[in-house]
Amino acid sequence: MKLADLVKKTRTYRRFDESFQVDYEILKQLVDLARLSASGANKQPLKYLIYNTPSDCRRVFPFIAWAGYLKDWPGPESGERPSAYIIVLGDTSISETFGVDHGIASQSIMLGASEAGLGGCIIASIKREELKNELMIPAKYEILLILALGKPIENVIIEEIKDGDVKYWRDSERSHHVPKRNLDDLILKF
Amino acid sequence: MKLADLVKKTRTYRRFDESFQVDYEILKQLVDLARLSASGANKQPLKYLIYNTPSDCRRVFPFIAWAGYLKDWPGPESGERPSAYIIVLGDTSISETFGVDHGIASQSIMLGASEAGLGGCIIASIKREELKNELMIPAKYEILLILALGKPIENVIIEEIKDGDVKYWRDSERSHHVPKRNLDDLILKF
Repeated sequence: MKLADLVKKTRTYRRFDESFQVDYEILKQLVDLARLSASGANKQPLKYLIYNTPSDCRRVFPFIAWAGYLKDWPGPESGERPSAYIIVLGDTSISETFGVDHGIASQSIMLGASEAGLGGCIIASIKREELKNELMIPAKYEILLILALGKPIENVIIEEIKDGDVKYWRDSERSHHVPKRNLDDLILKF
Repeated sequence: MKLADLVKKTRTYRRFDESFQVDYEILKQLVDLARLSASGANKQPLKYLIYNTPSDCRRVFPFIAWAGYLKDWPGPESGERPSAYIIVLGDTSISETFGVDHGIASQSIMLGASEAGLGGCIIASIKREELKNELMIPAKYEILLILALGKPIENVIIEEIKDGDVKYWRDSERSHHVPKRNLDDLILKF
């Protein structure tokens, strides 16, 4: 697939067929894409946790906040939750700061997930301390991002932005609409 | 091309055929890949500057620091410098913080550059205030990253890491060697 098509396909998905089990080897290959992506000063301070069983996913889910603009939606209901997570950690014994390494790594993983027929959501809104306790993550690791993954069951439609309003919305058929700024508004000239 | 091959091909390059002019339309398409990539809370606060003429590139170059581990190498010499730059700005009138949006966007752009036969370097070590003055960038924009681009003329080889030493090096034929951590060392279990 051409990269432009893969990028277009890589939407943020928040509803999944929770019964679909994501293969551990595929998740490992996704982390390998992150491993081979750029890292500031080549320090490679990121580490990863992979969860793909129903019982492990149940441990992660409660510590995530979903879709801030959908005020009446607390997050995916049982049966529509992610069936895998990759948690991106920063190893502070390697570096105190992580620059944008986790953004770079996450994009490689999410593009790879799309190529593999999966989809998901990069989540930064996390109850970090509680989740660290639950998963018994040692103090030297910082939880940077959670990549929630699974087999998406929702339709996501890119919309032209109107009046600068970036809030996404759902229609009556639960399709998810996401306004994107125009290219010409993003490229500046001084 | 499969994404895994594209990620492998997307090495950090620091020497270029400076005479190769990068087409403006291609650079615009690369920004479009960034536009369609994920943004925290869908705020889309990133803006972009594109430079692809020799005179414009000469304005950007002096404000960049190159390859911290190569102590005897101040950066690419004349004739081997990037022939295009995409500068990633944060628009503080949209958001005060940018999360990892610029990491996500940069990875989309660098993968797209590879697909287009280009290559380059994500640069965070920038004399920001001086460059803002030189390019007359209004105060409300923050310089987040510079993506230096061009037609690479160096050979970059991924090496297995030894004794945890992440420092890259050049051999006598100026090939660039980059140690990468092993996948099994990146995936943790607690």
